[in-house]
Order: sequence, then C-alpha cells, then structure tokens
Amino acid sequence: MYDPITMKLNVEPLILSALKEDISSEDVSTNSVMPVSQAGEVDLICKENGIICGLQVFARTFTLLDENTVVDLKVKDGDEVKKGELLAKIHGDIRVLLCGERTALNYLQRMSGIATTTNRTAELLKGTNIRLLDTRKTTPNMRIFEKYAVRVGNGNNHRYNLSDGVLLKDNHIGAAGSVANAVKMAKAYAPFVRKIEIEVETLDMVREAVEAGADIIMLDNMDHDTMAEAIKIIDGRAEIEISGNVTAENIAKIKDLKVDFVSSGALTHSAPILDLSLKNLHAV
Amino acid sequence: MYDPITMKLNVEPLILSALKEDISSEDVSTNSVMPVSQAGEVDLICKENGIICGLQVFARTFTLLDENTVVDLKVKDGDEVKKGELLAKIHGDIRVLLCGERTALNYLQRMSGIATTTNRTAELLKGTNIRLLDTRKTTPNMRIFEKYAVRVGNGNNHRYNLSDGVLLKDNHIGAAGSVANAVKMAKAYAPFVRKIEIEVETLDMVREAVEAGADIIMLDNMDHDTMAEAIKIIDGRAEIEISGNVTAENIAKIKDLKVDFVSSGALTHSAPILDLSLKNLHAV
Amino acid sequence: MYDPITMKLNVEPLILSALKEDISSEDVSTNSVMPVSQAGEVDLICKENGIICGLQVFARTFTLLDENTVVDLKVKDGDEVKKGELLAKIHGDIRVLLCGERTALNYLQRMSGIATTTNRTAELLKGTNIRLLDTRKTTPNMRIFEKYAVRVGNGNNHRYNLSDGVLLKDNHIGAAGSVANAVKMAKAYAPFVRKIEIEVETLDMVREAVEAGADIIMLDNMDHDTMAEAIKIIDGRAEIEISGNVTAENIAKIKDLKVDFVSSGALTHSAPILDLSLKNLHAV
Amino acid sequence: MYDPITMKLNVEPLILSALKEDISSEDVSTNSVMPVSQAGEVDLICKENGIICGLQVFARTFTLLDENTVVDLKVKDGDEVKKGELLAKIHGDIRVLLCGERTALNYLQRMSGIATTTNRTAELLKGTNIRLLDTRKTTPNMRIFEKYAVRVGNGNNHRYNLSDGVLLKDNHIGAAGSVANAVKMAKAYAPFVRKIEIEVETLDMVREAVEAGADIIMLDNMDHDTMAEAIKIIDGRAEIEISGNVTAENIAKIKDLKVDFVSSGALTHSAPILDLSLKNLHAV
Amino acid sequence: MYDPITMKLNVEPLILSALKEDISSEDVSTNSVMPVSQAGEVDLICKENGIICGLQVFARTFTLLDENTVVDLKVKDGDEVKKGELLAKIHGDIRVLLCGERTALNYLQRMSGIATTTNRTAELLKGTNIRLLDTRKTTPNMRIFEKYAVRVGNGNNHRYNLSDGVLLKDNHIGAAGSVANAVKMAKAYAPFVRKIEIEVETLDMVREAVEAGADIIMLDNMDHDTMAEAIKIIDGRAEIEISGNVTAENIAKIKDLKVDFVSSGALTHSAPILDLSLKNLHAV
Amino acid sequence: MYDPITMKLNVEPLILSALKEDISSEDVSTNSVMPVSQAGEVDLICKENGIICGLQVFARTFTLLDENTVVDLKVKDGDEVKKGELLAKIHGDIRVLLCGERTALNYLQRMSGIATTTNRTAELLKGTNIRLLDTRKTTPNMRIFEKYAVRVGNGNNHRYNLSDGVLLKDNHIGAAGSVANAVKMAKAYAPFVRKIEIEVETLDMVREAVEAGADIIMLDNMDHDTMAEAIKIIDGRAEIEISGNVTAENIAKIKDLKVDFVSSGALTHSAPILDLSLKNLHAV
Repeated sequence: MYDPITMKLNVEPLILSALKEDISSEDVSTNSVMPVSQAGEVDLICKENGIICGLQVFARTFTLLDENTVVDLKVKDGDEVKKGELLAKIHGDIRVLLCGERTALNYLQRMSGIATTTNRTAELLKGTNIRLLDTRKTTPNMRIFEKYAVRVGNGNNHRYNLSDGVLLKDNHIGAAGSVANAVKMAKAYAPFVRKIEIEVETLDMVREAVEAGADIIMLDNMDHDTMAEAIKIIDGRAEIEISGNVTAENIAKIKDLKVDFVSSGALTHSAPILDLSLKNLHAV
Repeated sequence: MYDPITMKLNVEPLILSALKEDISSEDVSTNSVMPVSQAGEVDLICKENGIICGLQVFARTFTLLDENTVVDLKVKDGDEVKKGELLAKIHGDIRVLLCGERTALNYLQRMSGIATTTNRTAELLKGTNIRLLDTRKTTPNMRIFEKYAVRVGNGNNHRYNLSDGVLLKDNHIGAAGSVANAVKMAKAYAPFVRKIEIEVETLDMVREAVEAGADIIMLDNMDHDTMAEAIKIIDGRAEIEISGNVTAENIAKIKDLKVDFVSSGALTHSAPILDLSLKNLHAV
Repeated sequence: MYDPITMKLNVEPLILSALKEDISSEDVSTNSVMPVSQAGEVDLICKENGIICGLQVFARTFTLLDENTVVDLKVKDGDEVKKGELLAKIHGDIRVLLCGERTALNYLQRMSGIATTTNRTAELLKGTNIRLLDTRKTTPNMRIFEKYAVRVGNGNNHRYNLSDGVLLKDNHIGAAGSVANAVKMAKAYAPFVRKIEIEVETLDMVREAVEAGADIIMLDNMDHDTMAEAIKIIDGRAEIEISGNVTAENIAKIKDLKVDFVSSGALTHSAPILDLSLKNLHAV
Repeated sequence: MYDPITMKLNVEPLILSALKEDISSEDVSTNSVMPVSQAGEVDLICKENGIICGLQVFARTFTLLDENTVVDLKVKDGDEVKKGELLAKIHGDIRVLLCGERTALNYLQRMSGIATTTNRTAELLKGTNIRLLDTRKTTPNMRIFEKYAVRVGNGNNHRYNLSDGVLLKDNHIGAAGSVANAVKMAKAYAPFVRKIEIEVETLDMVREAVEAGADIIMLDNMDHDTMAEAIKIIDGRAEIEISGNVTAENIAKIKDLKVDFVSSGALTHSAPILDLSLKNLHAV
Repeated sequence: MYDPITMKLNVEPLILSALKEDISSEDVSTNSVMPVSQAGEVDLICKENGIICGLQVFARTFTLLDENTVVDLKVKDGDEVKKGELLAKIHGDIRVLLCGERTALNYLQRMSGIATTTNRTAELLKGTNIRLLDTRKTTPNMRIFEKYAVRVGNGNNHRYNLSDGVLLKDNHIGAAGSVANAVKMAKAYAPFVRKIEIEVETLDMVREAVEAGADIIMLDNMDHDTMAEAIKIIDGRAEIEISGNVTAENIAKIKDLKVDFVSSGALTHSAPILDLSLKNLHAV
Repeated sequence: MYDPITMKLNVEPLILSALKEDISSEDVSTNSVMPVSQAGEVDLICKENGIICGLQVFARTFTLLDENTVVDLKVKDGDEVKKGELLAKIHGDIRVLLCGERTALNYLQRMSGIATTTNRTAELLKGTNIRLLDTRKTTPNMRIFEKYAVRVGNGNNHRYNLSDGVLLKDNHIGAAGSVANAVKMAKAYAPFVRKIEIEVETLDMVREAVEAGADIIMLDNMDHDTMAEAIKIIDGRAEIEISGNVTAENIAKIKDLKVDFVSSGALTHSAPILDLSLKNLHAV
C-alpha cells in the first residue's frame, strides 16, 4: 500500500487530473437518466489470472468523487487473482459508480498488468541471486503508479528520476574526458547520499570505473565472456547491473554470472493490461 | 499533426508535467559533468519496423526545455519506418538533449506503438466497410496522445470522454426503466448536437432502440446469427457498432455483416511500444 | 441540481478561484473587529420576482470556506420566487458568512438572472414546437454556471464548447471547398458520436447540405419566405435551427414555421441579475 | 491599457483558463476541414454604438494561441465607436482565428458593455462634483476585467477586494459594540495605508463615526433631508459615499447634495454587452 | 490566529507546496521500516527563550497529511516560551509525524524567530508613541506567514503588497514631474479607499507633500534636526513614517520626535530562527 | 549557474508565484503616475561586503515580467563583492523595473546572505579534510534557491528531500527493532542508487551500523573521545558525518578527528541577508 502522505501529495492530484480528462463538463449519459442520487452496488470481477495491483488507487478514484462511497476489498495488492473471482464490492451513489468506473479501471488494469508481467519475469530469475530492476521507461505522468506496480510484482526500483540517482552514460563520460573524471566529478557535485553508477562498454572502462570508486557498474551490451571477465575485474568492489530483454532463454545464458541486477524497460513500457471489469451494477 | 491551439492548451501542460515528474530538482548526473552549455547533436534511430507517431510531441519536449533546440525531422507522423532508419536529428545544448531524452522517447515510443497496432488491426478490416474505433480504455492523463495515435494509425475515435458523447449502457437503461425511455430522456437532456448511442443485448432491445430513434446501436455480446438478425431489424435506420477483440480469425467471422464500426480497447490499453532510440550524441 | 461529480471536478475549482479573487490575503474589515469565531445566522432574501438558480453553488461557497456552515434552503433551483420571500437561512461562523457573502451572491444573482431571462423567453415560444437554445456567448470562466442556468430556465443547451459539437460555418465551408465537402470531411474526421451541423445562407446551400447528410441545418439570416422554402426542401431529413433575437414580436413572425430550435446569445450575455440579498445577520 | 506586469501575472492566466473552457480537447469543426495552417485575415466590426474596451485582452487571446498572430487595431480603449465601424484587422493562421474568436469576443463584448454603461451613467453626474464608483458585485473570475472597464468608462474603482480596503458594515459595528469601537479597532488592526470607511444609518451614527475619525462615511438608505443633515454634521471631516440606482431621475434628487461618491452595482452586474462581430474571414 | 478563510484560501496551498518540495515521491527512509500505520506521539519542545508563533500552521501541516492527526497545544501564538518547555503533543500515524516534522518546524521556527525579533524590537520603542512597522522585504512565498508573525510580535503591518497600498517614491515623483503632481495623480487613479503615502527627502518636498494632501509622509534619510523641522511643517496634517535600523542606540536619537511609525526590513529579512524540536517520538 | 532545464521546470514557477504574492491585481502606485511605457535604467549596488549569489534569479524576475528587459551583469555568482560596487545595470520599461525590484532583491539578498554565511563557515574548516553540509532546515518553498546558495558558498548539499536520500534516525531504528534491521530493511526497500545513512548515539550502535553495511554513519551528540573511538571502530568502512554549530571554537575541538562531513542547519535557517539595493533609476 501507499502511505497516506504519498497518496495525498503525489497520487491524488494525478487521479483528479485523470478524472477531469474523462469528465470535462459532466457525464451527459448518466445525467440524462439519473437526475438524482440513487444508492447502488457493483462488483469488481477478475477476467484473467494475474497479480492484482492498484486497489487503493481504484478505491480513491471513487472516494475522491464522493467521500461516502464504500469500497469493500476482498483481496490486497500483490495477491494472485483468478478469472471469475470477485475482487471487491463498491457501494455508493450510482452516478459516482458510473462516472468513476473507467478511470478507476484504467489505473487498476494497467497497474495489475505491470505487476503481473514483473512477477512472471521475476520468476525467471528464481534460483539466481540476480534481482530485477525497472527503468525510467515509464508512461508519462504514470511513474508513481508504475514503479509501485513493479515493487508489488517483486521487482526492484532503479532510480525514481533524474534528480534522485546518478547514472553516468557515455555522453557524461565524454563530457568529463574519461571514466575516472566522470566518477570524480559526480562525487564532488552530487549530494553525498547518492551512489555513483556508471555505464561501461569495455574492460578498460570497467577497470577505470572500479578504481575510480564507482558504486555501481552497468555492463552495457557485452557478450557473456566479456561480462565474466568484467565481473572478475570488479571482484566485489562495486555492484553490477546488466540490462536487457529478460526471457527464459536469455536468463539461461546469464544465470551463472555473479551480477546483482538486471534491468528491463519492458516491465513498464510494454506490459499488457490485466483484464478486469465492473459487473452487476444494481440499485440497493 | 496537432493544430497549434491544441498543442498550447491541452498538450504542452501534460508534457511539462511529465518533465517535472522526471526532474524534480535537477539532473544530478548531467550537472556533475557539464557545468556549462555545450552545443551538440543526436540522432533519433528506429529500432523496429512500424508506424511513427508523436514527432511533434517529441520535438516539443525539447523546445519546451530550451526554445533554441532544433529538431530536424526526416519523417512525418503516419510514415512506415524501418529498423535502422534515421528519423530525426536534434541539435541543441547537450544538457537539454540529455534531460529531455527519456520523456521525449517515452511519448514517442508509446504513441508509435499505438499507431502501429492500430494500423495492423485496421489492415485486417480491409475489404470490408467496417471502420475501427478506439474506446475510453486509455492510460490516465494520456488520452489526448493515445486518441491521436489511433487516428494516425487509420483508426477512428469514439467519443473523447463522458462529456462529449452519449452512450447508454445497461445501467442507464435500468435507471430509465426501458430502452425507449432511456433514448427519450437522453434526447431531452443532452445538448442537441450529440447523437444517442445505446448498447443492446437482445433483439427486442434492438427493436425498441431503433423505434425510439437511437442514432447508433451497439450490439453487445451477440452471436453471429443474432447480429445478422439485428442488422435486418435496424435496416439502415441507425449506425451499428460492435465491440471486440479484432483478430484475423474474428474478422473472418464478421466480415459479411453490414456493421459500421468495430471498437477495440486493446489498441490503447495493450499495445507494446515501438522501439526507438537516441544515438550518437556528440558535441558540435 | 449538479451531480456531485461535476461539482467536485468542474464547479468547485472555479468557486475557489473566485473566492481568492475576493480575498487575496485576508478580509481586513472582518478581522479587525472579530478576532475569534462567533456563531451567527443570516437570511437570504429575494428582492425581485424571478426564477431562483444556483443555490447549490451559493451554499458550496460557504461550505468550501468552512465545512461546518449549514445552509438551510427553503426553495430549490427553478422555483418562482417573490420579492420579500425568505429563500434560505445560513448558520455558521459569522466571519465565514461575511467573507463568503459577496462571492456567493455574485454567482446566485447572475445564475438566477439568466434562469429568469431564459424562462421568460421560453414562455414566448409556448404553443409552438420550437425549443430555445443557448450559445457559446457566455461569460469567460462562467460557462458551466450559465449553461446550467439556461436549463433551469427551461432552455436547452447547444454544444458545450468547440470540442464537443460540430458546427460548420461559412469559413469551414470555404476551406472545404463546398457544403458537401465540408459535411463529408466532418463525417470522416469527427468522433462518430457527433451530429454534423452546418450553417447555410441560400437555398442552394440548403439542398447541398441536406443531400450531403447534415444532421442539423442552421438557417442563417434568411427572410420568412426563404425559410419556409428551406423547410420544404429539408422535409424532415435534418433538424433545423434558426438564430436570433427572441422577442414577442419576432416570435409572431416565425411561429408558423416548422423549425426545431431557435438560439439566442442574449440569454447568457445580456441577462440582468436577479436582485437578492443577505439580511439580518446576527449572532446566535 | 493594462501595464505588461498585470497582463502577465493576473490577466493572461484567466484568458488561458477561458480558452481551455472552450477547447477541452480540440476544435473538431475546424480540424475536420483545415488539416494544415492557412494564413487568413478577419475584420472586427462594431454592430452597435458605444465605448470600446478590452482590445488588449481581445488581441492577447489570439496571440496566446499563436504568437505570430497580428492584431492591427484601428481604435483604442475608451473610444466611442459606431455601428458598422471597422475596429481591427486580425491576421494569422485561420485555425487560430476561428478557435480564438468566441473567447476574444466574449471578453471584448462584456468589457465594452460595462464601459458603455459606465460612461452613460457617468454622463448623468456631469455638472456635479459627485464621482461614480463601482462595487464588488462583479462576475466571478472577471473582476480584473470589469473593474478596468469601469475606469475606461470614466468610473472610479471602489476597493478591489476584501483584502485591500476596509468597509465596516452593520455587522462589523455590531461585533465591535459601537461605531466608535469599530473604527478604533480597524485603525489598530488594518495596515496603516488603508482608509477606514464605515456604513451608517442614522445621524447619531454619523456623529459617532466622524468623531471616531472615519475617513469615509457611507450614508446607507437615508432620505434626502437626512442626508443633507448628515453632510452638515460631517462638515468636510470625512469623504461621503452614497449608494444606489443611478438614473437621471435619481440624480436630480441628489445633485444639490455635497457628497463625493455614488456607487452602483449595476455597472458590472447588469450591463448588457456591446454587440461586436468578426466578419469577412478570408484566406490571404 | 488566522481566520479559517485565510487558512483555507491563502495559507494551506503554500503549506501543501512546501510538503511537495520535501516529498517529491515518497519518504524512502520511513517507508523502508514502517510499511504500515502505527500510532505514535511526539513532543514539541522549546530549545530557546522567545515568542512562539505559527502553531496553527505547524498543526495544519500534519493534519493536511492526515486529518486524524491530533495536535494538543499547550501554548498559543504570542506567548513567551522558555527553553525546555513542552509546547505541544502531537498524536497520529508515526509516518505522518516523521514526514511532516521538518516542514512543520521550518515554518514554526521561522515564524517564531520573526515574532521574537519583532517583540524585542518593539520593546525598544516603549515609552514613545512610535509604532513599529514591517516592510515588503519578506522571503518570497512567505509573506502571509511573515507579516502575521510581525503582528504576533507586537509590530504593525505596512501595506501587504503593491496592489493594496500606495507609496510614491522618488521615481514615481520623477515620472509625475513633482511631488504635488504625484499625489494628485495617485488620488485620481487609486481606488479611493487607499491612503496616499509619499517618500520625501527635503523640507521643500515635505511642504509640497503636505499641501498636496498626502495622507502619510515618509521622511527618507534625514538627520535629526531636519526631521524635527519636517514634523513642525507637517503639524499633524499627515501621519509620519521614518525607516531605519531600530537599535537601542538609534531609538535614543529619535524618541523625542513626534513621528508615528518607524519601519524595519530586518524584522523579516534577517531574524534568526527560534530553536524548536520534536522529541520523544514513541509508539502508543 | 542553474542549467536551463532546472530554471524552466523548478525555478521559474516559484518566481512567478512570488511575483503574484506582491502584485495581486496591479501596482497602484506605479500605474497612478506612469500610464504608458517608458524606457529606463537602474543600477544594482552592493551595500555590504560578501559573496553574491542568485543573479540569474534576479535577472529572470525582470525578464519574466517583460522579456525585453536587459540585465547587464558585472559580476557572477560566487564572486566576492564590496560595499559600493556596481553589480549590474538593468534596462527596460521603468514600470517593470519598479514592479520587479522588491521580489528580485528579496531573492538575491537572501541567496547572497546564505552564500556569504556558508563561505565564512567553510573557511573555518580550511586545513582539515572535513566538508561542510547543509540540511533540510530551509525556508518553505525556498529549498531550490537555498541549496544552490550553499553550493555557491563552497558548501555541499546533503540530500535534497525525503524522497532522494535515506537517513535512518532513532525512530526508524525503533520501528525496525535494531540498527542492523533498519539498515537491512532500507537496503531491501530503497531504490538501489541510494546510500544508506544512519544516525547513531552509542559505540554499540556504531559497531552494529558498520557491520550491517551502512554507507554513512552520523555520530549524534557524542563527546570528543567517544567520536574518536567511533572513528576507530568504523575504520574507513563508512563515511562519517557529525552535525553541529560550526564556530571557530567548535572547529578547534574537532579538527583532529577524521570525519568526512559536518552539517549545519544555521547556514540556511539563520543567515542574515546581504544588503543590496537598486539605485539611480532614471529614464533613458
């Protein structure tokens, strides 16, 4: 679950913005036929097996519209859910249920889709010590939802954004003049609570990085043998990240390597949604 | 392309919000090694075949950060692009290129992914008179980007949101008491420039809807023969929409039906991104 | 009444903005003499006969400032009210009553003025089948209030804004090349839930419009006989709107015409307010 | 004219908000028929005699949408304009001219309406030393436009809002215990750059107010003889404001009274618009 | 205390903005170790003698994050507090207490610092009739907090901002052509509820200002004898302000002068904070 | 200097908010006497020796109001400036110079005050390897300005906010159950690019922290000998921070200790401003 502070400061303003996107003046269909409040109830039904994620966001979408809405959850974030399962019952003004439905589901389906994909991917790493990381390849204005879904799916978060983590890439190295200079300049400039991560392409760069005191070294686009050699050079003096397309086949090729992390943009940029639906809306 | 008014009023505020999501104080990596401005250039490279979409958003991300950035586009929205193709060159302060890169690509990759998926899906409808529609199953705070991408991919837009189109579903019908009442109430309430669409499940409902003067009838979850019967009943007096999973196999089953539209949520909620990348950043 | 969703998303932010307009730091007069909270009560009195409209906005202005304020309404939107009538009693912190008074009344007086003018105008159309429409000639940042007031006054709403209705005027026709082209292009571009309305000036244009399948035809600036001829040409194949200054005298001239709608900008742009006042504020 | 600072900080954000009110996603009519930019020109024509006001707001509406729009003004705020007169030519992307038209005119017509009404009312006071004041009875979120229009129409502005002027009414006096106490408390509390105005109903209150050192005394609802007596009591020791319905007939009754100001809410709350129109849009 | 209207409209939005400054995504430290809510309690302890100010802002910081937080205040704004004194107990979700702590204290310490400095400075004026004024030399986006703290410390507020008070300085006089012209133009232009203050440097300017009817005259940078002469010239016809560094030594030099106000920028721009701390956080 | 991205996204919105704080409707003094634009020039003069900081913010305040304003800087951030020195000349519309003056100086004076205090404090650490750190004890809504000023004054930045650095304090340790648990939980939860800092009070806690793999250890409130012992225990396996009141006297006591950092809240919460002024405004 999100803590209440994050909900208030950083989650709710985005939900409100999404609701305004869907209701720029009023819901003309609902207002045509329901001129006054009527109490009702609707079921949240799972239509596909997966990991559920985003229930708090789902519920808050309705309670932001009307604080009297009651969302009775039968499951919690991270639970495996099955096709046909009843996940929640939502009680409230039927107009609120109809107006909030699409936005609430758009969040819940996408977050659950990411949690499910992350979970299935993390499974592939079982039996290794390698941990799965997300990236900054998130949907614009969805990062706080998507990074959370990765955690719920047993992934780990790489830096949240450009302001809270240092990752020196080839262009930074070029601007600094050398790997060693880049690490040194970052240590001098960056708030001292940040680790310094650097992306390297050759074994020479690996040597220079580890000697310059980089905290994390990302091996970029190396073949298996070069990675093995790089790991020997690093020898525990820095954490190691590799990036790439995490499939069963690819994992087989790296599972003997002592790397700490593998990062995957696909977790957030290409996960299909988990199919969910509101059913059986009826007056009570 | 977006017109300049939509860009200014409804697109740019969302790009700015996405940039702030990625840069909550400053880019510490870049600022560590590049204390002053330096002119540079970078290439936008296609890494996968598909339909490109969102170039204006991509470019505006950089020019919002620094209006002196110049984006030299080699292709335009809707073009088929090939793996390896150079799509654009971006010139400007290297710090701007590095800070804007991820947000610009996050938009461009997602919009191109949706345009590509829509285009491939629309191809399946070739040879029929059926047109492809999107839905409101879009990513929160991404609707203006995703609906545009559907159009670029040769899809059509269903209503933009709850405020600009009338679609009466089972709960609206329930609240109104009958299909006929629902249509009548919507005609009385809704601004007169809207058509009235109604979702029906049985042939009786079809009859009632068409007699009540519904402008569009959505056949919900009917088998092929029932749909054929419904079409006969409607007999050109209303437009017809069906919804569903548009695959080659499914199309084969409906291509003989005289329906006007088929809508698909998957266009926006489950399209994988199109892989694109900024390469060869160098000082000039 | 507004539904709670519209209130929350689209009405309350404007009320808050209006309150800040009136209180940029603090109410110096009230704070001079009332350093602490004091419970009080005030009456909302009608000072002129008319249709009351906006009571929910009036009440929300006070409860936004202090949720403990209680507004006890004696009438409801749409009611005929008489000079001298007690319309509501408001109980709460006197400082809140004093600070909210002007903004609450500014909304209520203007909305009631529009509802009253609309009601009196709609009366003139009694005995005909012609319905009264508003326009987009509303006061900036007041549209959601003014369009609502038109409905309360027995008017109908034309499109809400440029994004939710299609109305092709002479310049659109010019750009498209012809009436037929304009209608065709709009049908191809616009989300399919919109009707296509077109403004025409000659009988030739009427013919072209109706043949091109326009849903609504606006007869612009035609004399009585030309309108009668246009109506014959259209022959029920499209709805008909005329616009103009709706006075008793003008109505007499058109009441025999079978048009569906007459639109009037004066409903929103030139209605005088309905005089209302808060009286008898006293401590309790 | 507004100074550039006020335009930037306090006028432009409201114009942008009004534009978003009218264009929540895009102008579907214009985008249907004008997929690309086309240069055009349109005339601003006066359709009714009056005082023009708000030309800068009118122009800024277009240049906010597209900074390349050129507005060539033939008149300036405060000028008497005649029916049929060409007031300005606007050149730019036709799509911008079409999208900005309604919002620009809604501001200009309303501001000109208020300037005209104010000017005609101020004329009635000619030959007296009485100056005409507005009130806080302005349209919500329109105050900066409406108070400006009053000045252009030769009126004077009363306080801008509750935060920048002190006006003690009966409830403030009640809370303070007496007129004298209220004035004393206001002098002690209010920033010392404010004058203290107090509303009084009896001659005793007048005496108390002037002795307590009120800077301005508002005579509320007194008959002619009582006002004459009050003026004698005050004897130049405070400025005097009366409020009311300023008509030729009413003026005749007070023109012999030595009051400084008469305030009128009708200037802003009930002025009809001045009819203006954009005509002859054509490509260039 | 602030009235509830000012809190809602003008104080709370700034507190929220400050909280977002400190929590751009989440509190990673707290969320690491406290995945769920836990009730706790913490003490607000005074670490330095002074005047406490800002308790309402301090409390609202926590209740904005979680409305269930209870702040039990032992003192009130303006009280003298002693090193070691318990000022308040705060009960609530420990995560809320930890996340709100720094922002709440940053406000409280700064406001108390200003109240303390103002109080100590105002003490120096005891035995004279001179009152102490603040200036517009406040910290950006802190004015509503800092001006309030000055009042709590027994100071008086000069104008709140450029929009609510008239103060004509040398450049205004230059632009107007003369002191007399400047005063005259301000009387003609400025809403009539403002007093006109003018800053003068010579006795000739004093004469001109008082004759032109300035309400307040600020003696700028004059020596003691010139000031004495100026006061004679003014002779009670205007209020008098001097500005300057208010120290015990300086006061001795002016205490025999019959000026009304002395203003000091140092109250807000250079007051050190009052040291306060949250201690003894524990679960309950 | 700030990079252009930070200026656009995170600095300019705060400057605009500060300008609106000072100009809620218009500058009535200036508008009284300067109805039209007039070109002018003014000098920025130093009135006190110190380190100048914030020139870019100072300049942007004016150019945000009017992009044609030209600020000709004679010095740059970090320069030592002397009483009487000309620091910049600003050319532009005199109304813009007058309206922006106070806000521009309020930023510049405060930032320069902090840079000066930081610089003088950092001087005290010369000859040691200890580096000076700021804290989160910044003025609300001023952090991006105050942290920058610390860097300009040769200080270093501790974490920017709660979201980008981990600092485990006694309450976190209490919630986790032990120092070791707290470190372990933070390593598991926090994005892997963060170092883990922990605050300890006893030598046992030091041992536990260093063994648990804390990256930074803050010695809280220990005497000299205990600190010396702690440093021995840590033995280079973690960085060491101490906090405290950095005075010449205190430095003498710790200069022989091999700690890496000393942090000081006073740099931002109690630095007096550097006195600066705009002089010689004249028309050109």
